[in-house]
Amino acid sequence: MKKIFFTPGPSQLFHTVPDHIKEGINKDIFSISHRSLEFKKIYEACVYKLKAFLEIPENYNISFLSSANEIWERIIHNLIIDSSTHLVNGAFSKKFHDFAIMNKINATEYFYDKVEYDVDEIEEDELIAITLNETSRGIMCDSNKISSIRKKLSNSLIALDCVSGIPSIPFNISDVDTFYFSVQKCFGLPSGLGVWIYNDRCLEKNKNISTKKITGTYHSLENLHKKSEKFQTPETPNVLAIFLLSKVLDDMIKIGKDRIVRETNYKSALLYNTIQNHNLLSEYIKDKSIQSKTVIVSKTKKESKYFIESLKNKNLIIGNGYGSIQNQIRIANFPSHSKESVELLCDELTKL
Amino acid sequence: MKKIFFTPGPSQLFHTVPDHIKEGINKDIFSISHRSLEFKKIYEACVYKLKAFLEIPENYNISFLSSANEIWERIIHNLIIDSSTHLVNGAFSKKFHDFAIMNKINATEYFYDKVEYDVDEIEEDELIAITLNETSRGIMCDSNKISSIRKKLSNSLIALDCVSGIPSIPFNISDVDTFYFSVQKCFGLPSGLGVWIYNDRCLEKNKNISTKKITGTYHSLENLHKKSEKFQTPETPNVLAIFLLSKVLDDMIKIGKDRIVRETNYKSALLYNTIQNHNLLSEYIKDKSIQSKTVIVSKTKKESKYFIESLKNKNLIIGNGYGSIQNQIRIANFPSHSKESVELLCDELTKL
Repeated sequence: MKKIFFTPGPSQLFHTVPDHIKEGINKDIFSISHRSLEFKKIYEACVYKLKAFLEIPENYNISFLSSANEIWERIIHNLIIDSSTHLVNGAFSKKFHDFAIMNKINATEYFYDKVEYDVDEIEEDELIAITLNETSRGIMCDSNKISSIRKKLSNSLIALDCVSGIPSIPFNISDVDTFYFSVQKCFGLPSGLGVWIYNDRCLEKNKNISTKKITGTYHSLENLHKKSEKFQTPETPNVLAIFLLSKVLDDMIKIGKDRIVRETNYKSALLYNTIQNHNLLSEYIKDKSIQSKTVIVSKTKKESKYFIESLKNKNLIIGNGYGSIQNQIRIANFPSHSKESVELLCDELTKL
Repeated sequence: MKKIFFTPGPSQLFHTVPDHIKEGINKDIFSISHRSLEFKKIYEACVYKLKAFLEIPENYNISFLSSANEIWERIIHNLIIDSSTHLVNGAFSKKFHDFAIMNKINATEYFYDKVEYDVDEIEEDELIAITLNETSRGIMCDSNKISSIRKKLSNSLIALDCVSGIPSIPFNISDVDTFYFSVQKCFGLPSGLGVWIYNDRCLEKNKNISTKKITGTYHSLENLHKKSEKFQTPETPNVLAIFLLSKVLDDMIKIGKDRIVRETNYKSALLYNTIQNHNLLSEYIKDKSIQSKTVIVSKTKKESKYFIESLKNKNLIIGNGYGSIQNQIRIANFPSHSKESVELLCDELTKL
């Protein structure tokens, strides 16, 4: 049996990816000029499908960067002058906050130790950073919570980190001004592409900021946006990744976002159920309302290595706890993980 | 016949690339964690082979970024406080200069209109930026010239842009403190990876600068270097590109750098000869000592479209003049272009 990767990203490739890569090679996509009409058509198609699939409203724009790390840095340079507020509930939301501090931004972090945040305590700021799905600890942000933050803080820009959330965890796009993801999580693609979506309010704010501080060079929001309007990138981009994203979007559009969400819910219920009923496992996040549907984190009563190695022998690859965290395992539940593969994983977990 | 791409990058894939991608898919390389031992081994092997193949001295280090554009920005943030000197002879060297200006660096540009620069006129500065091969105009910098700049300016950091030069155009690495390239040119790979090589003097200078200004976040030189020492990248990188670079290095090491340089010279002589003997073509750069061996630029007496379209009908894809330049064609001569394919191109050019 071929290995199945349940690691939280890079993860299992979406099953159509090998064929799409072959098609890309056969059609010379990786040799064409990034200034050619042919590339512009690929770019345009990818953006069009992203907008259709994710139901992105008209006043939102899309640019391609290299990683979510890069997008954090570009948001800080392009959308914040003095201060930002970060709802921190794990290593990635913390990192965004730390990047802001490194850039001399007066960045406030809320509730590092609690898993939930209380909307009432959050005040208006230049930018509020929220994480749809905190990959490090498996914590999800409910879409109603995002809506209530939007409602309370109408003057702030709201940025939503959707790295391991889109398209499996729904939220109302109009509740946020900017959101972003990288393709090696729920889109099941090789890593090396970050997708940044921003609305006209972001562009407006950026115009103001550009006169006050250095917002970057080739990847300033102004430059990114100017190029994106011509279906181009400022630099020679990861053409392969943009092509693959466009092709996988075709596949996902055929399946339908609703079905992807439904199957995500079903598979996550299976996984949490297996963990609950296991003598050696217990859910790391107890509160059902914030348990991640895409990155399932379990505490282990035996060394996590026991589970990781035992499953590896069955060609099932799961993740360890984030960073140096011991006695935890993490299991990804992305669209590339079929119901059958999750059922198989649950069966094998149960035997341990 | 399959198309052959002589465009100056992205260009023809190195002939082994499709097989390497297949191997990557079969071995699940694009699913493994970028924090896994398996990835670290790929990273380490890639760096080891780069050092062996390019004969990089001990005191030089290697980090992986996204593009040469990014490396320009990181050099400006990490190696320059106040001022830099740019030997500008085309659009790309000009762009690096402009990036410095955007970052409020007092950046001097030398000899924009001339094709050659006179070493005597260049003064010591924090950083001297030279371009080994200016892709936009097909101008090469002779290695002796770089040596004489190094000799004259011992207190400056010297940065060499090797984007479309390495490994086809030789130079003495110890003459420069930092150099960089992207993989879609001479390495015949899909775009989306920049390779930055810097010596200990750069690290020393960076230590000083870090206390004085913001040098970045995830891709500050300090952070890049710290991670590279553990064979890792700060962010989830373009794993596919690092894997492919490592595999193509195996192939190129087997061929040998000397043979690659020899064949580059032979093929460029063929191309320039064809242009010289053509009624409708003439070399854009007349001075043999600075004619690029890897990007051959020709003026055209008929519209460049005539040549581009006629050759396209024969499945030979060549480039237009850079940007909006009319009546020019550009032909890449990279290791991925076999002698036979260049001979074929020359034959077809001669018929026009």
